Amino acid sequence: MSLSESRRAVVLVSGGLDSATTLALSIKEGFEPFALSFDYGQRHRYELAAANRVCASLGVKHHSVVPLDLRIFGGSALTDNIDVPKDRSEEELTTGIPITYVPARNTIFLSVALGWAEVLGATDLFIGVTAVDYSGYPDCRPNFIEAFCRLANIATKSGVEGTVSWQVHAPLINLTKADIIRQGLSLGIDYGITHSCYDPDSNGHACGRCDSCAIRLRGFSELGINDPAIYVPAHPQNESTRN
Amino acid sequence: MSLSESRRAVVLVSGGLDSATTLALSIKEGFEPFALSFDYGQRHRYELAAANRVCASLGVKHHSVVPLDLRIFGGSALTDNIDVPKDRSEEELTTGIPITYVPARNTIFLSVALGWAEVLGATDLFIGVTAVDYSGYPDCRPNFIEAFCRLANIATKSGVEGTVSWQVHAPLINLTKADIIRQGLSLGIDYGITHSCYDPDSNGHACGRCDSCAIRLRGFSELGINDPAIYVPAHPQNESTRN
Repeated sequence: MSLSESRRAVVLVSGGLDSATTLALSIKEGFEPFALSFDYGQRHRYELAAANRVCASLGVKHHSVVPLDLRIFGGSALTDNIDVPKDRSEEELTTGIPITYVPARNTIFLSVALGWAEVLGATDLFIGVTAVDYSGYPDCRPNFIEAFCRLANIATKSGVEGTVSWQVHAPLINLTKADIIRQGLSLGIDYGITHSCYDPDSNGHACGRCDSCAIRLRGFSELGINDPAIYVPAHPQNESTRN
Repeated sequence: MSLSESRRAVVLVSGGLDSATTLALSIKEGFEPFALSFDYGQRHRYELAAANRVCASLGVKHHSVVPLDLRIFGGSALTDNIDVPKDRSEEELTTGIPITYVPARNTIFLSVALGWAEVLGATDLFIGVTAVDYSGYPDCRPNFIEAFCRLANIATKSGVEGTVSWQVHAPLINLTKADIIRQGLSLGIDYGITHSCYDPDSNGHACGRCDSCAIRLRGFSELGINDPAIYVPAHPQNESTRN
């Protein structure tokens, strides 16, 4: 598809590994991406710098960072005065919905994306959720994506006038973390510029112990390669990266 | 229902006639309302002062005003440099979706309400939409409310764990504007403190000519009573109020 034929899409970009891969996939599929990030009072606000780097590295021309402070209601370890769980066992990682769940976050983010897309004349949204190696968040699952898509076709002018059919793309939803990384590497993504950690130190270095780090590190480990992200000095991953 | 038995609900309160009535109805139904307003870059930001007055007059203890600037994408006469339509005919008022439609607004507002409600342990949301005497906005219709409710039960921790069933209350949805006013008056609402106009003057006085004013004025007219809101000096409604 030539550039002149490219269709616009709004792509949620957090600055993490998954959304970077999703952004690259949207471009590969011929879309002109309008990247959307949120400054939502997240503990790991450092991810916004990563979102900027990711967008720049992929040549994205349009990137909005929307301030929307979800600390107004808190209730999550990411937006409230609650400790981020660390060093959880495999069983803990795969059971239940952890305290890092931010109530209605993806619903809120997709809603704003929907509004922006409608103004742009776009009918495609991209979100980097995955329901395989993930934290069990409800708003990362296939039936959530389907329900949001159904809502989009009812909630918007373009949807009810029947002139368009909204598509919510979640290209990673059935992939393991290792598969996501493999795809991203084949697309030339430098994962060293992404940020996944929920609880980085003051230099933005990943803790290596939260659920997000654990799932990410396992993905790289399964592929037998080192995660190029920078971890806190005490973390063994740093040793293997240096060696 | 005694106060100790009251359940929490998040109620969207714009400061207009409909949301004031909805707030009063939520209280009548025994809920403890947590009022939610948005400072979204609306042309008629004056409505936020009305939202404060409405909450105070109904004894609401919790009222959050969330800054979320939808001018980032604009595309509506309420959030962009687009004239608000005035003096539209009955046929124009009841045909199509006007330029005052704010893309995805109610989806965004309900999503934030959903997040706040989940943290509060609430499972009820109230929104003052009506699909009778209205501007034809898609996100005011019954199937939108149903689709959002379905989404809420999939998108949230409490929903997927099956511990609760979300309810999105839209008690005005099948009422005419006159019926809404009649109900509100029976609940003791002072509509003089509400604000509906899309394009008030610098004193916050209603224009009397936008769609929102037109629909409101017709509602009062059908009941044979004067709208106690203050209109711009040149508007004939003022004369009737003074007389």
